[in-house]
Amino acid sequence: MLDEKLLSINQVTLMEQWSLRQAIESLGRSGLGAISVWRDKMREIGAAEAARLIDGHGLAVSGLCFAGLITSPDHAEAAKAMDEVRRAIDEAAEIKALCLVFVAGGVDPREKDIKAARARALDRLAELVPHARGANVRLAIEPLHPMICATRSVVSTMALANDWCDALGADDVVGIAVDTYAVWWDPQLEAEIARAGKRICAFHISDWLVDTQDVRLDRGMMGDGVIDIPAIRRMVEAAGYRGHREVEIFSARNWWKRDPDEVIRVIRERYQSAV
Amino acid sequence: MLDEKLLSINQVTLMEQWSLRQAIESLGRSGLGAISVWRDKMREIGAAEAARLIDGHGLAVSGLCFAGLITSPDHAEAAKAMDEVRRAIDEAAEIKALCLVFVAGGVDPREKDIKAARARALDRLAELVPHARGANVRLAIEPLHPMICATRSVVSTMALANDWCDALGADDVVGIAVDTYAVWWDPQLEAEIARAGKRICAFHISDWLVDTQDVRLDRGMMGDGVIDIPAIRRMVEAAGYRGHREVEIFSARNWWKRDPDEVIRVIRERYQSAV
Repeated sequence: MLDEKLLSINQVTLMEQWSLRQAIESLGRSGLGAISVWRDKMREIGAAEAARLIDGHGLAVSGLCFAGLITSPDHAEAAKAMDEVRRAIDEAAEIKALCLVFVAGGVDPREKDIKAARARALDRLAELVPHARGANVRLAIEPLHPMICATRSVVSTMALANDWCDALGADDVVGIAVDTYAVWWDPQLEAEIARAGKRICAFHISDWLVDTQDVRLDRGMMGDGVIDIPAIRRMVEAAGYRGHREVEIFSARNWWKRDPDEVIRVIRERYQSAV
Repeated sequence: MLDEKLLSINQVTLMEQWSLRQAIESLGRSGLGAISVWRDKMREIGAAEAARLIDGHGLAVSGLCFAGLITSPDHAEAAKAMDEVRRAIDEAAEIKALCLVFVAGGVDPREKDIKAARARALDRLAELVPHARGANVRLAIEPLHPMICATRSVVSTMALANDWCDALGADDVVGIAVDTYAVWWDPQLEAEIARAGKRICAFHISDWLVDTQDVRLDRGMMGDGVIDIPAIRRMVEAAGYRGHREVEIFSARNWWKRDPDEVIRVIRERYQSAV
């Protein structure tokens, strides 16, 4: 049996059903140990009230999702995006999140230069490190699936996340989030998870559906797809990770339409049978 | 100006508009140098008649698409798939295709074991090498986008295609097809194209649309997306490739609905401005 105290629910999994207040109260009542907070939804009540509620319900915060999108070739746009990341760092500190998920940003269609986008994002991430260190917030670089490279993140592999960590030399404050959905296909996965070692500060789980119908909003429940999630869990554990297993399912056609108590019930079952 | 004799049209780009006969006749009249034949469509007239028509119109055949799908854990299924590849090799020889595009196959949902699927596909590909050599047909391993790893191909990167070529030790008869759409996001792309060198025996072009709406059938016309296609063309040329630039656009919502002469006109323009 896996420890339910290490089961975290990313709020986005119930994006359409629950406000942040409802999520905290429901998860608190359910006896689960942790939540991951979706930043857009936190605007409903603000970080201070979120922190108060989370404390009151005894939940850990496995992460704050997300900040970044700092690849723009436009300097004014980039400065604005950097300010937004700094605000997110402060919010992550306020709600005592174990990490702030960092999503690099995509490729600007005006420029069409993925190498330049990657170089800028790494430079700017380096600039953000002192602020994160000052706030005692760990930034978790999250490699995202190559199918959202154009729009969300030019960090498409564990290898690149590791390369960035090497370049930053800031393992005290920059780590990596491993998301099964984003990395399961990667022939280098096992080697690069081992290379990441203690950098791994978040582990996100969902499944890849054979009949995937959308590049972002059609993730599957653990067990419903083709990913060997237990194998990837064993890899991150062999690398030294001992933290939460965070369920993060964007599912416009299925799970976002279901009764939230049913979703939580299925997650608890699958946590034991398919994680 | 790029040489129009090196512009090839993959028949799938006009899948909904043209039969193979129409495609051959129209491309022959247009003065373009080459076609890539879609195997499913060739069943309309058979390989012998296709060969006769292609010869009569003076077209080169940059490839026959496709054969493979040999990852099944079921022995009977696999044997059937292997026979089908052998038939495709013979057809490729008959129409004098410069290569037969090899698509490995996906991950079986009953098994959920990508490592096992990869191992089987490589073993079976090795078994097919003598038949290909005997028929004097080059097999082009095509890395496909990770978003179709579950259903189409467990070969998701150039690095893995190169690893397979190393393992096979059959560079005389096994090469690699580089498709901009499948590989543009890869941080290791430049290094792995250089590593591939003379293995590259096909170069497929299309663009990645920012608002991609389907994992398979929503490719963009060159110039309409975020891929720096000229940069990738220069990489394959630096590696020694001198063959066709083959336009392969699956586009259910746009190009498959257009007048075929307009599609060809736009392709010729974009071949000069965005390739």
